[in-house]
Amino acid sequence: MGAAVVTDLATEIVIPVCAVVGIAFALVQWALVSRVKLSHSSTANNGLNDYLIEEEEGINDHNVVVKCAEIQTAISEGATSFLFTEYQYVGVFMVAFAILIFLFLGSVEGFSTKSQPCTYSKDKMCKSALANAIFSTISFVLGAITSVVSGFLGMKIATYANARTTLEARKGVGKAFITAFRSGAVMGFLLAANGLLVLYISINLFKLYYGDDWEGLFEAITGYGLGGSSMALFGRVGGGIYTKAADVGADLVGKVERNIPEDDPRNPAVIADNVGDNVGDIAGMGSDLFGSYAESSCAALVVASISSFGVNHDFTGMCYPLLISSVGIIVCLITTLFATDFFEIKAVKEIEPALKKQLIISTALMTAGIALVSWLALPSSFTIFNFGVQKVVKNWELFFCVAIGLWAGLVIGFVTEYYTSNAYSPVQDVADSCRTGAATNVIFGLALGYKSVIIPIFAIAVSIFVSFSLAAMYGIAVAALGMLSTIATGLAIDAYGPISDNAGGIAEMAGMSHRIRERTDALDAAGNTTAAIGKGFAIGSAALVSLALFGAFVSRAAISTVDVLTPKVFIGLLVGAMLPYWFSAMTMKSVGSAALKMVEEVRRQFNTIPGLMEGLAKPDYATCVKISTDASIKEMIPPGALVMLTPLIVGTFFGVETLSGVLAGALVSGVQIAISASNTGGAWDNAKKYIEAGASEHAKSLGPKGSDPHKAAVIGDTIGDPLKDTSGPSLNILIKLMAVESLVFAPFFAKHGGLLFKIF
Amino acid sequence: MGAAVVTDLATEIVIPVCAVVGIAFALVQWALVSRVKLSHSSTANNGLNDYLIEEEEGINDHNVVVKCAEIQTAISEGATSFLFTEYQYVGVFMVAFAILIFLFLGSVEGFSTKSQPCTYSKDKMCKSALANAIFSTISFVLGAITSVVSGFLGMKIATYANARTTLEARKGVGKAFITAFRSGAVMGFLLAANGLLVLYISINLFKLYYGDDWEGLFEAITGYGLGGSSMALFGRVGGGIYTKAADVGADLVGKVERNIPEDDPRNPAVIADNVGDNVGDIAGMGSDLFGSYAESSCAALVVASISSFGVNHDFTGMCYPLLISSVGIIVCLITTLFATDFFEIKAVKEIEPALKKQLIISTALMTAGIALVSWLALPSSFTIFNFGVQKVVKNWELFFCVAIGLWAGLVIGFVTEYYTSNAYSPVQDVADSCRTGAATNVIFGLALGYKSVIIPIFAIAVSIFVSFSLAAMYGIAVAALGMLSTIATGLAIDAYGPISDNAGGIAEMAGMSHRIRERTDALDAAGNTTAAIGKGFAIGSAALVSLALFGAFVSRAAISTVDVLTPKVFIGLLVGAMLPYWFSAMTMKSVGSAALKMVEEVRRQFNTIPGLMEGLAKPDYATCVKISTDASIKEMIPPGALVMLTPLIVGTFFGVETLSGVLAGALVSGVQIAISASNTGGAWDNAKKYIEAGASEHAKSLGPKGSDPHKAAVIGDTIGDPLKDTSGPSLNILIKLMAVESLVFAPFFAKHGGLLFKIF
Repeated sequence: MGAAVVTDLATEIVIPVCAVVGIAFALVQWALVSRVKLSHSSTANNGLNDYLIEEEEGINDHNVVVKCAEIQTAISEGATSFLFTEYQYVGVFMVAFAILIFLFLGSVEGFSTKSQPCTYSKDKMCKSALANAIFSTISFVLGAITSVVSGFLGMKIATYANARTTLEARKGVGKAFITAFRSGAVMGFLLAANGLLVLYISINLFKLYYGDDWEGLFEAITGYGLGGSSMALFGRVGGGIYTKAADVGADLVGKVERNIPEDDPRNPAVIADNVGDNVGDIAGMGSDLFGSYAESSCAALVVASISSFGVNHDFTGMCYPLLISSVGIIVCLITTLFATDFFEIKAVKEIEPALKKQLIISTALMTAGIALVSWLALPSSFTIFNFGVQKVVKNWELFFCVAIGLWAGLVIGFVTEYYTSNAYSPVQDVADSCRTGAATNVIFGLALGYKSVIIPIFAIAVSIFVSFSLAAMYGIAVAALGMLSTIATGLAIDAYGPISDNAGGIAEMAGMSHRIRERTDALDAAGNTTAAIGKGFAIGSAALVSLALFGAFVSRAAISTVDVLTPKVFIGLLVGAMLPYWFSAMTMKSVGSAALKMVEEVRRQFNTIPGLMEGLAKPDYATCVKISTDASIKEMIPPGALVMLTPLIVGTFFGVETLSGVLAGALVSGVQIAISASNTGGAWDNAKKYIEAGASEHAKSLGPKGSDPHKAAVIGDTIGDPLKDTSGPSLNILIKLMAVESLVFAPFFAKHGGLLFKIF
Repeated sequence: MGAAVVTDLATEIVIPVCAVVGIAFALVQWALVSRVKLSHSSTANNGLNDYLIEEEEGINDHNVVVKCAEIQTAISEGATSFLFTEYQYVGVFMVAFAILIFLFLGSVEGFSTKSQPCTYSKDKMCKSALANAIFSTISFVLGAITSVVSGFLGMKIATYANARTTLEARKGVGKAFITAFRSGAVMGFLLAANGLLVLYISINLFKLYYGDDWEGLFEAITGYGLGGSSMALFGRVGGGIYTKAADVGADLVGKVERNIPEDDPRNPAVIADNVGDNVGDIAGMGSDLFGSYAESSCAALVVASISSFGVNHDFTGMCYPLLISSVGIIVCLITTLFATDFFEIKAVKEIEPALKKQLIISTALMTAGIALVSWLALPSSFTIFNFGVQKVVKNWELFFCVAIGLWAGLVIGFVTEYYTSNAYSPVQDVADSCRTGAATNVIFGLALGYKSVIIPIFAIAVSIFVSFSLAAMYGIAVAALGMLSTIATGLAIDAYGPISDNAGGIAEMAGMSHRIRERTDALDAAGNTTAAIGKGFAIGSAALVSLALFGAFVSRAAISTVDVLTPKVFIGLLVGAMLPYWFSAMTMKSVGSAALKMVEEVRRQFNTIPGLMEGLAKPDYATCVKISTDASIKEMIPPGALVMLTPLIVGTFFGVETLSGVLAGALVSGVQIAISASNTGGAWDNAKKYIEAGASEHAKSLGPKGSDPHKAAVIGDTIGDPLKDTSGPSLNILIKLMAVESLVFAPFFAKHGGLLFKIF
């Protein structure tokens, strides 16, 4: 039990300092991006242009700048207005849910203010159940607010950066890349640092009340994860429906029926489509990954609180998860410099490798970082509590747990790349199947998605087995944290994609030259693959996080085994495995219906506005924005309610055993659908791009745009949209959210749950 | 413990008598069908024509009869030749697997011939492990042979009946219906009775050796289920790939590119398509349902063998599962008369209700039958063994277990009908979404499939909960048996569909008048929905059967709990939930690739054979038959091997806990995919038929054939083909087969399994 090298005071300093450094770094990146001016008076020229191999185009065209600024304003306003509307509706739901949390948890001991024996050490006294109710509710609200801020900031940055990226693309692909990537980094670092800081401050504030009752303290902190994830759910679902209704609607009429290019300003749904990228892919994803981060931290903390760290009040050991995240911020900071300062992008083909290098560098550096933290912050061995038995863990064992999560993430990332990038045979086969029409394209695409599940599942299974064997549920929690430790870089890459996508849209709408569009398209194509990789990370970490939360829930609900052979558990397992289907049915149908409405509106405008096709009249963008907004606000409620209410209903009426089954079932079934849906969608998208780009003999034989195989590919791409951007990524949240919610409500379920079985 | 009313002698008589009655009834039906002559000399005229409201058409046209006979011969020869080829390849695999069974089970006690203490009553002596190896291998071979015979006979009957149905359609829809339905009944009764008889005889023969060691006897009998299901796996997968490669290939060129009708004789793939219906939908399904029946009987018997029935050698109680099946045959016999003799079909719209009535009548009668058997054959209470504890069960409790399975099957059937029949809004919504193209059609169809999972899963969950609560694993086993007790009627309805489909094909190919085709189309449309219902039954029963087998496996492998919270079990659960995806990826890709080859061949023939489109030259049918044959033989091996080898590998290297996880994971995840795949496919098929039929204002607004919405619907239908006829139904077998295989190999795994964990 050799003590840790780092003192508690050092820990108290290191964590906030790293968070502040992260925020400062984000602000520096912002400042660098803002040097690209959106007014003509001072076109930025920072003297580095000489390395650009491409010629500069139209940088003195005042009109283009004005037009870009206008479009950016329209997109930004649309996104802001949607998010405000969304937050209003969700706000009501969240307030109601906060009250529910308070009532349920408060009722555990009849709102008594009396102290009670601790759950795990019955000889000690812990704070009252009412205190748990109050502080859980507060941390829930804090988590929700932090999530809102994360998503909103991300959206603001993205809509600030998109037109700037377009303008920089006039100077060359390298400049545009740096602008887009820096903007992504702003979001990544702000989110990671902000999440860490709020969590850290909350813990310290809660400690003022809880004192030495760390068990109670960290139980209350789990509300933070619940708040973050609840918000993320609505963000992902609402944003996902918005963006895909607009995208599908715009494509079906624009590309398929009218044969006009993507993002053509004549298409009435084009602004809605671009707004969608920002509210769905940026704000939704930001909330989502923040939620994952918050939950994995909370899961690790709550498990640690009943280990020897918690019992012996070893603050540094206790803060190990936060220290990992702190080092992660520094590692990502260094990694970012590799993309923006140490190397320069000179040609289109260097973009994708540069982004992949980010992942590899951050993973390699982080491995060293984890080793350092494990060596400095942990005692040479410590004891954890595992469903009633004690387990001694060595510090190097915990290092392996975190590291295996980190590297499993990389494996999942590369497998995802293999199945969704058009540089490899799987996507090329899908493209080839377009020769015989849309039906074979869909059959091959679905088969590809199913197949792409195999290796990630084995990677997750190995991580679970190793980390559990080494350090039980705490091992799994820190493995999840390991996968998310490079979240700042992951988010930067993720956000880079939609920013580039928007930049391309703005170039098209502003009527800029074809070469500019080609440059932004190249940025976007690389972003597509990295977006799929990001989704892979998100899903993998969600699986680990939920398992850790599930384990914490089972501990807290005082269940010793979850035996599949008892009917209570088995029916839970069966119904749990069904929930992702129910949820997907809702979200996909929502996108479909909203897209149908959008199609009708777009067709109506083309048919009734004279001169629209000829570019003589302006379309009515606002109506399309309204259709997407209304549809997503209305349609996000039922799937959201399904996820949020299921644990409450099952726990209250059927009890903790059935709820355990539901959580395990939803986890093992949801992961598969999430991975296959997002890879199928990504593959269809890139198969289409493969045909469009026509970079090889094979690709040329399928093209060009407008050929029959290309039309078949467009159909596949459209089907993939709701799979990869609405239902697929929302499933991560479904899995995590149900687990963290069960954990928060565990004391209530353990005390009052299973009403139905009690009655009969 | 009041004794049963029925004596053991009566049981010994009742079971074989019922089986023989079933076979005799099947032969009578066959004789009635064969009265329709395929030669002109004696056109059947049984004097009942007067009731037919439709006029008779062309019954004196000699050429048509000759042509029909020719086409029938071609289909029959193609199917026979394929099945022989398939059986050759599978035969090699089965022999190898039989050797494996012998070696694995024999090695448990080092091939010693010494008696050993029984597993469940350690004070008694049971037969040696070597005896178990020998008899398990024998019953495996018996099961496989019975399955082959079932599939082959079914195919023979169907190809015997299809042209006869076509010819009867000249006299009216009622005559055609009766011919098709009688032929289906031949298959249904032969299979049900044959399966029961072989099982009954085997038990009696095995008893000569085993004597009072019932535990050993019924353990060895489980090989029968394994043999039946292994054969069924290859039958379903091979047949499924064959039929869908031909179907998709024929449609993609014929309907989409060349605009010629389905089953047009100019289409080179048309014979392969019709052969496919017989080898996939008939032979494959026959093997499949026989497998389910064999497994549920074996599961119930092996669980009963360690109950008080087995311990006290109560033969009648022991044979309760067989008595249920015996009564089921009689009930189905009476039910069949309602379709063929008590009522007459006079118009097209009466067909679907008549088929649905079959389900309702058989379920209602069977409920009485179950009550009777439970009252007469069971003691008033008895004891079963449930993972180490004894549980007393009353006879009326067991009645409820069987009955809830039976009625849950009906619920699943009706939900399936609601989601796949075009009389209801779900399919109409899907059809409506074709207005905006294939992409929305696919999105809506997928969403429909996902949604259709909800109620069946709840129905299965309730059955599991109730039957387990009443009679533990034995309750679940008999619930599965209850769902399958009306298998003869289920199979008759199921087989009726492809027979009608083929009849329509023959009418088209023989160039018969449009009115004949309309009559067979009406038969086929009703068959489509009932086929979906049949699939619902198959999946529901598969879930229950596998759970019962799983329970028996766990008992036999001497595991007391399967705790999700141990990493060994959890990674099993995760990987198990992935297997259905892996399997589906393989089978869908196989269909896709084979269809691509078929498309190229069909295109080649249209392009290179002069006069083919004009009907002046004959296409080369044989090449298309060969493509389907080669593809399915080659492609069925990898998915087959995946399913058959997974339990062996997992059990041997990772041990029984991980294997339990894999079984549970595959079960809860596979059921969902199977239901959603088959309903999505069924809905797309009927959405297309809805548009084609144009029976309502709404349907007319989407049509006619060849309109854009119709083209979109055809694309959906084509995508659905491999989902509903290849990967979906094969998943039932995946679930059941892995469970029964684990059960058979349980002694080996328990003794020598988990090598990997033993080494490390």
